[in-house]
Amino acid sequence: MAKENAQNFVEQIADIDVDFPKWYTDVVIKTQLVDYGPVRGTMVIRPYGYAIWENIQKELDKRFKATGHKNAYFPLLIPMSFFTKEAEHVEGFAPEVAVVTHAGGEELAEPLAIRPTSETIIGNMYSKWLQSYRDLPILINQWANVMRWEKTTRPFLRTSEFLWQEGHTVHATEEEAMEETLKMLGVYKEFAENCLAIPVLTGRKTEKEKFAGAVATFGMEAMMKDGKSLQAGTSHYLGQNFAKAFDIKFLDKDGSQKLGYTTSWGVSTRLIGALIMAHGDKRGLVLPPVIAPVQAVIVPIAAKKGGVMEACADIRAKLEQAGMRVELDDSDNSPGWKFNEWEMRGVPVRIEVGPRDLENGKVVLFRRDTCTKDFYALDDVVAEVSALLKTVQKDMLESARVRRDERITDADDMAGILSAVDGGKFVRAGWCGCRECEDAIKAETAASARIMTEESTHEKCAVCGKPSKHTVIFARAY
Amino acid sequence: MAKENAQNFVEQIADIDVDFPKWYTDVVIKTQLVDYGPVRGTMVIRPYGYAIWENIQKELDKRFKATGHKNAYFPLLIPMSFFTKEAEHVEGFAPEVAVVTHAGGEELAEPLAIRPTSETIIGNMYSKWLQSYRDLPILINQWANVMRWEKTTRPFLRTSEFLWQEGHTVHATEEEAMEETLKMLGVYKEFAENCLAIPVLTGRKTEKEKFAGAVATFGMEAMMKDGKSLQAGTSHYLGQNFAKAFDIKFLDKDGSQKLGYTTSWGVSTRLIGALIMAHGDKRGLVLPPVIAPVQAVIVPIAAKKGGVMEACADIRAKLEQAGMRVELDDSDNSPGWKFNEWEMRGVPVRIEVGPRDLENGKVVLFRRDTCTKDFYALDDVVAEVSALLKTVQKDMLESARVRRDERITDADDMAGILSAVDGGKFVRAGWCGCRECEDAIKAETAASARIMTEESTHEKCAVCGKPSKHTVIFARAY
Repeated sequence: MAKENAQNFVEQIADIDVDFPKWYTDVVIKTQLVDYGPVRGTMVIRPYGYAIWENIQKELDKRFKATGHKNAYFPLLIPMSFFTKEAEHVEGFAPEVAVVTHAGGEELAEPLAIRPTSETIIGNMYSKWLQSYRDLPILINQWANVMRWEKTTRPFLRTSEFLWQEGHTVHATEEEAMEETLKMLGVYKEFAENCLAIPVLTGRKTEKEKFAGAVATFGMEAMMKDGKSLQAGTSHYLGQNFAKAFDIKFLDKDGSQKLGYTTSWGVSTRLIGALIMAHGDKRGLVLPPVIAPVQAVIVPIAAKKGGVMEACADIRAKLEQAGMRVELDDSDNSPGWKFNEWEMRGVPVRIEVGPRDLENGKVVLFRRDTCTKDFYALDDVVAEVSALLKTVQKDMLESARVRRDERITDADDMAGILSAVDGGKFVRAGWCGCRECEDAIKAETAASARIMTEESTHEKCAVCGKPSKHTVIFARAY
Repeated sequence: MAKENAQNFVEQIADIDVDFPKWYTDVVIKTQLVDYGPVRGTMVIRPYGYAIWENIQKELDKRFKATGHKNAYFPLLIPMSFFTKEAEHVEGFAPEVAVVTHAGGEELAEPLAIRPTSETIIGNMYSKWLQSYRDLPILINQWANVMRWEKTTRPFLRTSEFLWQEGHTVHATEEEAMEETLKMLGVYKEFAENCLAIPVLTGRKTEKEKFAGAVATFGMEAMMKDGKSLQAGTSHYLGQNFAKAFDIKFLDKDGSQKLGYTTSWGVSTRLIGALIMAHGDKRGLVLPPVIAPVQAVIVPIAAKKGGVMEACADIRAKLEQAGMRVELDDSDNSPGWKFNEWEMRGVPVRIEVGPRDLENGKVVLFRRDTCTKDFYALDDVVAEVSALLKTVQKDMLESARVRRDERITDADDMAGILSAVDGGKFVRAGWCGCRECEDAIKAETAASARIMTEESTHEKCAVCGKPSKHTVIFARAY
């Protein structure tokens, strides 16, 4: 929409190397991924942005179902009293809650929270449904909107309302619940890498950074182009915390009543922010083919010349037939304008069809990730575009991985951590495990503990010099 | 879940002919479609119910996209002041609104409504996005939760929160907007008949029954087994009402600013209630194959006999391969128990696999709609089941149509209307067009005007005897 007002799209985007935050805002607004809603901190996800979310949903939902999960839907409104049943949980979420006090023209007897997350209300239902060990495991996921009232907001990254999925499971044993927690972390990682083309670091979070009410939180962290980290998904082992709070118990084989072990795990529309900041460049978005709403755009050159539009329509039909998502830009704009626009919108492959090339049985394929182009045989266009999309997908992951790995460094002291994060890097450092040292790093460098690595690579805590308990990835984060 | 507690499922369902409302409640709860949420008037859509909604979504979404619509997502919370901008709209919806007054630990400057429908907030955004005639039409749909605080609630039929889709479009002319309104009504009708196997009556609603803020509402009405009507979907021609209220205007070709014409249209999780009450019988649910979460269930007979379980697994693999949704019930329950359970859950086709039949190269296929069974060649099982699913789908629509048509009658006066609706029928009658006569029918018979028919079949108003302006279908309704 409103294309005619956008003759100079590209010039309107701030320079990514000069003002990354402004570049981000320019890109999300100008590519019509999103707009600001009328209420402070809310966003409207526009069709181009929502199509990305639909592709994310399709890919994830397939994986959830393949691992035995079913979808359900639980109510938006949660009695405030539910939150107080799990002490850490209420402390973490109560300050961010939006509260319904009136409905149907009357004041409510008990105020209701708009869900910031659904452990409590789902726990309440599970306690009702769960009877016997035969009912276990319970493996349910929900696609829903949630609300967390935030002071500072940015489209996709932090908004008062966002869309997400939240899996909630119950298991008979600690081992099974932990296995589920890690399995879903693995599903997220595989999805992030193979669909979003974003390499992620996964690992356990520190106590300070864990989910309010969890025994252990595992997260996946993605590096953005400015070297900051974005928490792209989390999987929580909740132990018996919520089972105790909501009386989630079952009659076991041995005839005794036992508490279940629960997990929860989620990713949100934040992933769209991750896509933008992990891959975008000075021209705008760069979308991986698996997730791109439009995988290939056909741009006619000298469209009025005989045969050009017919060839374009024919290519579109063939690509669609082969299952690709294709646009043919037959608007009145100039080819140059179209190139800029579709590059800004991050379409992975552009097919340029001109009269001279057609005579030679050729088309030009431009790939957005490398901004390079080459000639291909018109007769093989379906196979060539299909192959190129696969190549782009693979190469985007690979180059993101190289970019990231170059920007992970090590430090042995606070100065090292500060200089690393000032330089836009992730930094690996030893940590004694105490909250004071973690807080000190945050206070002095604005970096937080993103994950604890599996391997121990540092002997001493970078702050106090005592023996290191965990090797931690520190970074500034969204 | 909790299967072991349900040895006598069927006996637990109230008799459909004796107590239809109790039968409905028993069926929705015992087949685990839904459960009551902790807040009055809310529901939890359980996996079996949600799988029906997913199939409804898939079928509708395909049709919306084929007619040029794209999905987007607009905020849940709407400033209360937005509602007052359209006079009829606020009158219709303000009494049912749930209101957020506090968030993030503070009282809000302006209270926010949880959307009961999104014309206002979407209108606000469209006024921002719409610039020129080139941007038209705007064709957007949203899948979302909405909230209407209702006094009396029943799962799927009327709950404070429900899931739905709402299409919102803007057009340059009255004609195009009306064309869209009727096109989407047609999409709903085709979907209801071919996917839900529910024949529907479509037509314009009276002023009394129209959407608050519409110029004209068109509805589709489905007959339930008790002879009552259920409004299964509506499509609204909004004229310039919301365009005026929200300043939705564009620069036309002739250089002048013009107001757009808008439409909105929606169906909700109510459709699940329609499915249950249009097709269910004394054994429980009867689901049409296109929408059924499980299309065929395989029940082994004498499962421990050699070859039976292998044959069952083989049939499952082949049917899944062919794209069917299949369950193999390998639980320890008896075949008779399994028959009852899967019949109650409405699975369209049951495949019984026993050792003697296997020796003869046969299986038994039971069809849920007619509760009849027959032998089929094991070798042809994929083709036979596939064909039978198509037959069941077709026959369910046809028998619902016969059932309905037998129960539409005509009346010339109030006594005739009363006796028809007392007899569980829809009644066609003449109406002068005045609100008093419509109100009198409601007061004396509890029937409301469902739709105005295209054809005029009655000369006089059934109430006042004056010339009939519209022939109307009256019925008691959900």
